[in-house]
Amino acid sequence: MNLDARLESALQDALGDDAIGSAPPRLLEAVRYAVFPRGARVRPRLCLAVAAACGGKDNTIADATAAAIELLHCASLVHDDMPAFDGAMIRRGKPSVHARFGESLALLAGDALIIRSFQVLAAGAVQSPGRLGNVISVIGNGVGMPAGIVAGQAWECESKVPRDEYQRAKTGALFAAATMGGAAAAGADPEPWRSLGESIGQAYQVADDLLDANGDPEVMGKPVGRDVALDRPSAVRELGQLESAATLRRLVEQAVASVPPCPGETPLRKLIAQESEQFMRLALSCRAAA
Amino acid sequence: MNLDARLESALQDALGDDAIGSAPPRLLEAVRYAVFPRGARVRPRLCLAVAAACGGKDNTIADATAAAIELLHCASLVHDDMPAFDGAMIRRGKPSVHARFGESLALLAGDALIIRSFQVLAAGAVQSPGRLGNVISVIGNGVGMPAGIVAGQAWECESKVPRDEYQRAKTGALFAAATMGGAAAAGADPEPWRSLGESIGQAYQVADDLLDANGDPEVMGKPVGRDVALDRPSAVRELGQLESAATLRRLVEQAVASVPPCPGETPLRKLIAQESEQFMRLALSCRAAA
Repeated sequence: MNLDARLESALQDALGDDAIGSAPPRLLEAVRYAVFPRGARVRPRLCLAVAAACGGKDNTIADATAAAIELLHCASLVHDDMPAFDGAMIRRGKPSVHARFGESLALLAGDALIIRSFQVLAAGAVQSPGRLGNVISVIGNGVGMPAGIVAGQAWECESKVPRDEYQRAKTGALFAAATMGGAAAAGADPEPWRSLGESIGQAYQVADDLLDANGDPEVMGKPVGRDVALDRPSAVRELGQLESAATLRRLVEQAVASVPPCPGETPLRKLIAQESEQFMRLALSCRAAA
Repeated sequence: MNLDARLESALQDALGDDAIGSAPPRLLEAVRYAVFPRGARVRPRLCLAVAAACGGKDNTIADATAAAIELLHCASLVHDDMPAFDGAMIRRGKPSVHARFGESLALLAGDALIIRSFQVLAAGAVQSPGRLGNVISVIGNGVGMPAGIVAGQAWECESKVPRDEYQRAKTGALFAAATMGGAAAAGADPEPWRSLGESIGQAYQVADDLLDANGDPEVMGKPVGRDVALDRPSAVRELGQLESAATLRRLVEQAVASVPPCPGETPLRKLIAQESEQFMRLALSCRAAA
C-alpha cells in the first residue's frame, strides 16, 4: 500500500464502526463529515514521508501518528469555522460542520476528534510502546498550549497580535508536529526535524495568505478575502504581494535545505521540492491573475 | 504529602508558568480560572485512592492520571456551560468561563484543557512508559467516543435520548475512567475496576438529580431546576423522589461491595463508604427539606 492509501485506511479505521459505531448517530455523522471526503492531507502525508525517510519499520505507529495529526487538523477547522471565530459557512466546498449540524454538534465533534486522535495514538503504539510518550509530547505541542494551534487561535482574542508568534502557532506548529511526529514514530530523535516542519508551515501560511488575497473561492472550496474582512494578520497585508511571493520562494528553499541526515534524505528532499512546487504554482498563478 | 496535596500540586504544575507560561495571556487566565479554586475533585481523588489501594509505587504517573481526569472534567464543564448547551452563567459560585471570558475563549480553553490532559499524561509516564497506552485508552474511553462524556452530551442532540446510555456516558464513564485509570497507573489490570467506577458514577448522578430538583443554589454554587427547564432525563423525573433516594442507597452499597481484591481493599472500602455518606446526606437532606 502506498502512503496515501495507508493514511486513508488509518482514518477510516479511526472513525469506523468497529471503533465508534455505537456513538450517538448524529455525532458519528458529524465527525465523519468533518474528515471525509479528504482535503489535501498535506500534514499527515508529510508525517508519513518523514517516518519513511527515517527508516521507520513500524507502520502501525506511523499511520496512527499521521491519522492523529489529520484528525486534530480537522478538529481545528470545525471549531475555527464556528460563529465564535470565523463564522465560515463553507469548507472544502460544502457547508461547514456547524452550518450543517448546528453549533452544539460542531463543538462536540471537534472535542470528539481531539480525543479520538489520542485514542488512536495509544492503540497504534502497541508494538512500539516506548515511542508513545515522545509522539504525544510532540503532537501536544503542535496543537495545545503554550504555542500550538489553540494558542495561535487564542492570539486572535488578544488586543495586540504578534504576527510571527501567531502564525508560528496557528500553522507552523502542526507542520512541526508532522515532521517531528514522523521522526518520533520511527524511533528517531524528533528535535532535528523541527526546522523542516516550521519552514514548510511558514511557506504554506504565506501561500494561504496569497490565496486568500487573490484565490478563486470555487477552486479553494472556501471563501476568500477573509484576512481583510476579519482584520487578521497576513503576509500580504504586511509585506505586499511581490515581497510575499519572494518570501514564499525563500521559505521553500529553506525547507528543502533543512532536511536532516537520514536514510531517505535524497528522495525526501525531492518529494518536498515537488509538492512545494505545486502549491507555490497555485499561489503565484493566482497572484499573476489578480 | 497526602493525596489532596499531591493532586493540587500536580494541577498547579500542569497549568504552571514553567509548562505553559508563554501561552496567550487571556487563554492562560481562562484555563486557570476553569480549574482553580478547586471544586470537589471527586473523580481525581477516587483515582488516587484506587492507585494507592492497588499498591502503585510510581506516584508521578498516578498524579498525572488524576490531574488529567480533573482537567478533562473541567474542560467538559466549560464547554457544557456554553450557550450551545446549558447556557449556564454560574459555576462553582462564580461566573462560568464563557460568561467571564466570552465564547471564543471558552471554546479554546476547553480545547486547551483536553489537549493539556494528554500532554500531562505523556510527561508523567517517563518512569513507567509501558503503562501510558493503557492509561490513555481508559481515559479516552471515559471522555470520547463511543460512550464517554462527549457522547453523553451528544445524546442531548438526538431526538430520542436513552436515559441509561445517556447518564452512563455523561457521568458514569469518567468515574469508570477514574477507577480504571488509577489501576492502570499502578500497573494493575483496569477492567476489574470498571464496575466500582460505574456504580459510584450512577450514585453521583442520582444524587445530582436530587440536588438539581431540591438543592439550594447558594450551597451548590450553580443554578438548580435545570433538568426540568432543559427537559433533560433525570432519575427524579422518571422515578420520583422516594424511589430515587432508595436507588441512591442501593448504588452506594453496590459500589462498596464491588471493590476488587487488592492490597488496600479494606481501607478503600471504608473511604468510599465515608465519602458516599457525605454526598448521600447532602442529597437526602435536601429532599427532606423540600
